[in-house]
Amino acid sequence: MHIQYPGSEKIYIPGQIYPQIRVGMRRVKLTPTVTKDQNGLRHYSENAPVVLYDTSGAYSDPNSDIDLKRGLPRIRAGWGAERKDIEQLSEFSSAYCRERLADHSLDHLRFGVPHLPLRAKSGHAITQMAYAKKGIVTPEMEYVAIRENLNCSELGIKTYITPEFVRQEVAAGRAVIPANINHPEAEPMIIGRAFLVKINTNIGNSATTSSIDEEVEKAVWSCRWGGDTLMDLSTGANIHETREWIIRNCPVPVGTVPMYQAMEKVKGVAKNLSWELFRDTLIEQCEQGVDYFTIHCGIRKANIHLADKRLTGMVSRGGSIIAEWCLQNNKESFLYEHFGDICDICAAYDVAISLGDGLRPGSIYDANDAAQFAELDTMGELVETAWDKNVQAFIEGPGHVPMNKIRENMERQIDKCHGAPFYTLGPLVTDIAPGYDHITSAIGAAQIGWFGTAMLCYVTPKEHLALPNREDVRTGVVTYKLAAHAADLAKNHPGAQVRDNALSKARYEFRWKDQFNLSLDPDLAMQYYKEAHYENGEFCTMCGPNFCAMRISHRLKDCPNVNP
Amino acid sequence: MHIQYPGSEKIYIPGQIYPQIRVGMRRVKLTPTVTKDQNGLRHYSENAPVVLYDTSGAYSDPNSDIDLKRGLPRIRAGWGAERKDIEQLSEFSSAYCRERLADHSLDHLRFGVPHLPLRAKSGHAITQMAYAKKGIVTPEMEYVAIRENLNCSELGIKTYITPEFVRQEVAAGRAVIPANINHPEAEPMIIGRAFLVKINTNIGNSATTSSIDEEVEKAVWSCRWGGDTLMDLSTGANIHETREWIIRNCPVPVGTVPMYQAMEKVKGVAKNLSWELFRDTLIEQCEQGVDYFTIHCGIRKANIHLADKRLTGMVSRGGSIIAEWCLQNNKESFLYEHFGDICDICAAYDVAISLGDGLRPGSIYDANDAAQFAELDTMGELVETAWDKNVQAFIEGPGHVPMNKIRENMERQIDKCHGAPFYTLGPLVTDIAPGYDHITSAIGAAQIGWFGTAMLCYVTPKEHLALPNREDVRTGVVTYKLAAHAADLAKNHPGAQVRDNALSKARYEFRWKDQFNLSLDPDLAMQYYKEAHYENGEFCTMCGPNFCAMRISHRLKDCPNVNP
Repeated sequence: MHIQYPGSEKIYIPGQIYPQIRVGMRRVKLTPTVTKDQNGLRHYSENAPVVLYDTSGAYSDPNSDIDLKRGLPRIRAGWGAERKDIEQLSEFSSAYCRERLADHSLDHLRFGVPHLPLRAKSGHAITQMAYAKKGIVTPEMEYVAIRENLNCSELGIKTYITPEFVRQEVAAGRAVIPANINHPEAEPMIIGRAFLVKINTNIGNSATTSSIDEEVEKAVWSCRWGGDTLMDLSTGANIHETREWIIRNCPVPVGTVPMYQAMEKVKGVAKNLSWELFRDTLIEQCEQGVDYFTIHCGIRKANIHLADKRLTGMVSRGGSIIAEWCLQNNKESFLYEHFGDICDICAAYDVAISLGDGLRPGSIYDANDAAQFAELDTMGELVETAWDKNVQAFIEGPGHVPMNKIRENMERQIDKCHGAPFYTLGPLVTDIAPGYDHITSAIGAAQIGWFGTAMLCYVTPKEHLALPNREDVRTGVVTYKLAAHAADLAKNHPGAQVRDNALSKARYEFRWKDQFNLSLDPDLAMQYYKEAHYENGEFCTMCGPNFCAMRISHRLKDCPNVNP
Repeated sequence: MHIQYPGSEKIYIPGQIYPQIRVGMRRVKLTPTVTKDQNGLRHYSENAPVVLYDTSGAYSDPNSDIDLKRGLPRIRAGWGAERKDIEQLSEFSSAYCRERLADHSLDHLRFGVPHLPLRAKSGHAITQMAYAKKGIVTPEMEYVAIRENLNCSELGIKTYITPEFVRQEVAAGRAVIPANINHPEAEPMIIGRAFLVKINTNIGNSATTSSIDEEVEKAVWSCRWGGDTLMDLSTGANIHETREWIIRNCPVPVGTVPMYQAMEKVKGVAKNLSWELFRDTLIEQCEQGVDYFTIHCGIRKANIHLADKRLTGMVSRGGSIIAEWCLQNNKESFLYEHFGDICDICAAYDVAISLGDGLRPGSIYDANDAAQFAELDTMGELVETAWDKNVQAFIEGPGHVPMNKIRENMERQIDKCHGAPFYTLGPLVTDIAPGYDHITSAIGAAQIGWFGTAMLCYVTPKEHLALPNREDVRTGVVTYKLAAHAADLAKNHPGAQVRDNALSKARYEFRWKDQFNLSLDPDLAMQYYKEAHYENGEFCTMCGPNFCAMRISHRLKDCPNVNP
């Protein structure tokens, strides 16, 4: 299960405020530039290594001892060791969890090393936001500050990202560090407009597919390619046990849509959902270590009919379920009515809330309509409630939106939701390309990322058609990494362009291996190159030996007439 | 070699000004919407067929008689039959062409049906631009006006695109109809900011790869997926004969970079190039029927050194060749010096000039630099010379550009080049994703298309790594079609959204086949769907039977409480 990135080594940068933290990164070593002088003698000049953001955790550390049955090292467990505001419970609080634990027919499915849950002591505010508001820089805040500043200190690049800046952004609600105290295996990361654009990957079994092994393997696979967070959207059997395996082995924050499991508990009959059942599901997942919940609290009974005028109605699963519940029971949504209770639960474990957009447009025709914006208004109201209770929160966004309507989404979200981070699915900029929707959506994602969206939810080539397989996950993650990086460049994120510059220099100097090692998918680039069967590395296969522009360009510099 | 699009029929729309023209289009037939009433009875309502822009020419007409050895029907030959300003020559004017024809060792390679070349009679201005300036609407202008107005008349969509509007745009130089009088097999199409965004596909053999058969097959393959023009970038053996086969069988305009063939003639030694040799190459290609030439006339000796400060120098093949010629001979570029002569040649056959951007940036670092913009200024000067001689012209653009610098490219091009159409390669919005550069470039292409670029040059997944194979061509073309369509939507092109709406309606109503037939790649969408092995068509495989948002959404409309 170890991950080996070509030409790379794992490095750790220690904290200055908190020496016990070690921020894992990937350092790509480069070969020297070789030039020949007029006498044919070769001259070598070094190329500085490039440090890359690394989401692969201990998996890419050859010195780490990986054992999926034991789980990843619980790195954050030590950081809060002295904290007096947290207690370990003697048993799990959720009835469902206790029921599953008591069922010995499930023993063979269960993750083997039990960890009793942590929870805030009564009366204590323990979230990152609570600390930030009190003026306290946590280890998590220093961790993400170091992580965001790739190559900056070595290269003398000016950066605004300090631990104190992180604290301010978290305190203001403009950034979120999803870090459930029960998921100490996760490396802290930050989601906010002032930071690197992040991407989320969805995995999960369904009623018809895949085993626990496969899901854990997919989780690690996603982290390998650069997924910043991971949503487990399982809707099949043994969701509880599958999730435990994923969380214990996942080095990035894990999100879920608790409604999916709630629906499994009522055997798919929305009418039978209840607040009590949903509440127990939240607690169950909080105590397992889920870092953020997507909850469609923004759907209000009065707004559901706004979707009737649409071409494609509601395309959100969670949203359509709660809408059906409202109409069948003729009641306001219990997610909306109990939003304060939901926040209280999340606050006790520092679970972030992702306000799900149940009324996102599912087609170009429905983009930016009354239904979508009515829900956004509600989310703006709810996010203030969350902040009052020190719960970190972000807002989910569309969907299908033509390019000329993307900016309005971003500006309105910032305005109505008071600067809370935006987390969008794409958006897809046309409906006509099923099979290529990783691309239609990456076009929209790159733009909205540039405009200020903090996290992009990936889309795979199978969107609208089927569940993604392993290769689809890879394609989806890499596509979204390049979209997010394009946004970072357009936003002038400190140090982001170092990687482009190093890769382009390698390309221009025919240092093919360096070019591949610096790329988002070295394996694929290498494979394409090798398939072309060129042995002489001194030209690009696009042009052939006589037409290599770069080779000619090198000669031009030596030409005496160049500066007449 | 016939092309069969699923669920589609070939239709022809006749001209009103010119009844002899028949504009070929693809009509997708849709199945009816089926609803059940409270008694379980089924009700059917028809869905209007959708007409799609069709670049496949006679290949998708089951009644056409396709024979690659004879070439496509010469549809435009009849249109100009009465024209008194054109004459047929008794032999080819180019020395090289006559030499090749006299070499009987090449007979087995040669296209079998000879066509003597047409040329303007002395003193006559015969280009589309010349006619447009005189106030004459040509058959080509009416053809493209009909072609651009998909579904508009049937659906009562207001459109500004009339034959007279086309004439005005061509007269002003804001649009180009590439239509060499020696390529009557091509269906007219228009490149301009006020029209549908077009895409170009590159094919071509190199010193090491592919035969004539393969190149013709690739040309048809590109048209099948929607390539609007085709550049033959061959640099290998028998370029002259290969091109003849391609042109005679190509239903879309064909472009070339004549410098590539000129370089083959001097065996790859740039210093030995001369205006006389280049001139003969232009005439050779004009008389074969090439519709537009990329010529790097904008490179001036004094500006070459501006590239010295770059990270990646010059990445244009044509540009670096002429730059090397300038420096080695210590002379101003003969392409620049003889630009007036080049225009005179092109005017005699109505070949359009694509002013190649030899100084385009090859990396994010080099974007929007002095070298690039110095060349753009020169191109702005040249385009006025072209227009004075009634030569249609457009301007090529970058390259590698971060998103925040794309708009400046478009605005500056419009300003400096007086509204001439822009034709860009991407741009790629990051350097770090070799293997995925169809996507990094589609992100930039969609944006610059929205901002006003008239044609996008496709990029395949193999860019920077190897020559594309058949599947790469398909991926590249479909990726660029979706980017161009996204731009059309964002620009509110009349009727563009009809296809999205019809596809999304089909998706929402689980009319899977209609959804696939309306998509850019029905085969791939169908394949992904079938691989998922779902038999019940009433839910999307992403969600499974219990979690289908669209199915729930249908139920919501019937729910009595929906409108309280």
